[in-house]
Amino acid sequence: MNISSKLIEEAVEAFASLPGIGKKTALRLVLHMIDRPTEFTEQFSGALAQMRTQIKICSNCFNISDEIECSICKDTARNDELLCVVENVRDLMAIEETGQFRGRYHVLGGLISPIDGIGPEQLNIMNLKPRIDSRGVKEVIMAVSPTIPGDTTIFFLSKHLEKSGINISTIARGVAFGGELEYADGFTLGRSIEARIPYQIRQTV
Amino acid sequence: MNISSKLIEEAVEAFASLPGIGKKTALRLVLHMIDRPTEFTEQFSGALAQMRTQIKICSNCFNISDEIECSICKDTARNDELLCVVENVRDLMAIEETGQFRGRYHVLGGLISPIDGIGPEQLNIMNLKPRIDSRGVKEVIMAVSPTIPGDTTIFFLSKHLEKSGINISTIARGVAFGGELEYADGFTLGRSIEARIPYQIRQTV
Repeated sequence: MNISSKLIEEAVEAFASLPGIGKKTALRLVLHMIDRPTEFTEQFSGALAQMRTQIKICSNCFNISDEIECSICKDTARNDELLCVVENVRDLMAIEETGQFRGRYHVLGGLISPIDGIGPEQLNIMNLKPRIDSRGVKEVIMAVSPTIPGDTTIFFLSKHLEKSGINISTIARGVAFGGELEYADGFTLGRSIEARIPYQIRQTV
Repeated sequence: MNISSKLIEEAVEAFASLPGIGKKTALRLVLHMIDRPTEFTEQFSGALAQMRTQIKICSNCFNISDEIECSICKDTARNDELLCVVENVRDLMAIEETGQFRGRYHVLGGLISPIDGIGPEQLNIMNLKPRIDSRGVKEVIMAVSPTIPGDTTIFFLSKHLEKSGINISTIARGVAFGGELEYADGFTLGRSIEARIPYQIRQTV
């Protein structure tokens, strides 16, 4: 793009440094800002700068939070006995979105991946055991992606928590609900036959 | 999305107010900013705020510019006799990108569209005639979209410039180069037969 304006170019570079935004989209966004009053850009930049400088990491579960303790940790109505271990905040949000889980979370901030040089010491694991012991957690649900780093992390954590005497579970893996069997990948399909579960007729109460 | 953070929510709203960015994409961008150091967001916001407050509109051709006169107007190597009228800066950039035009531009800032309440007085038309008269323009090329507002604008401008004694042309319209005839829309195809041009063997010099 022949932009011939240093100001525009720098603004385009800024947008294009975000994931999934190319130069053409970036230019469209910048031109949109020029079409709108100056206040629009001021508010936009202000909201982002404020968010970034004021956002905190929950000292307890490592969720992002407006305060020192996040709203999930502060919620007294949630079940202390269930602790859901997730890779990152995106996964936490996806689970919250389902509305199916009312326990607590623990955000690892990544998965163990020796190939990428990520070991347990880079993750938020230090306070996991003290948390489990002090809060009366009875079950830890490993809600991480079914990948090699995911499985490595589950293996490490299950060893790490072995002596705590708690139950460790993983989220169910198999063919997605509503998915056509013929389009499921072979590995998932194979494993879902291996890990088949006894059929139970659902009782409507 | 159940975000439970006012700061995040406001930042998501900011991104989602841009064209083509939905709430999910906005959230991904915000979480990306949280993953990166604070300086990343500071630089990002800074580049946009600086661009928006410092960007100028060229007093001559209404292109966006870092200075009072834009780099195209200042370029003494360009042909003063050709003036290309465009709807907006995006179109100007698209034409510059082709590298095929070395004349000057005039950015209208829109097209005449009575249905949308846009008349000639809302557009940058006032200084068009003085510009043509004082700069020795010989031909005005109407490079606007082949739509009803485009044609209305061309008609208005050709009447407006009638007495200037200059040539007025429009960009060629027809089937796109490299396009398959069978996929061309019927209207374009019909018009391109009506507006057929004598075939000339291209001489390679």
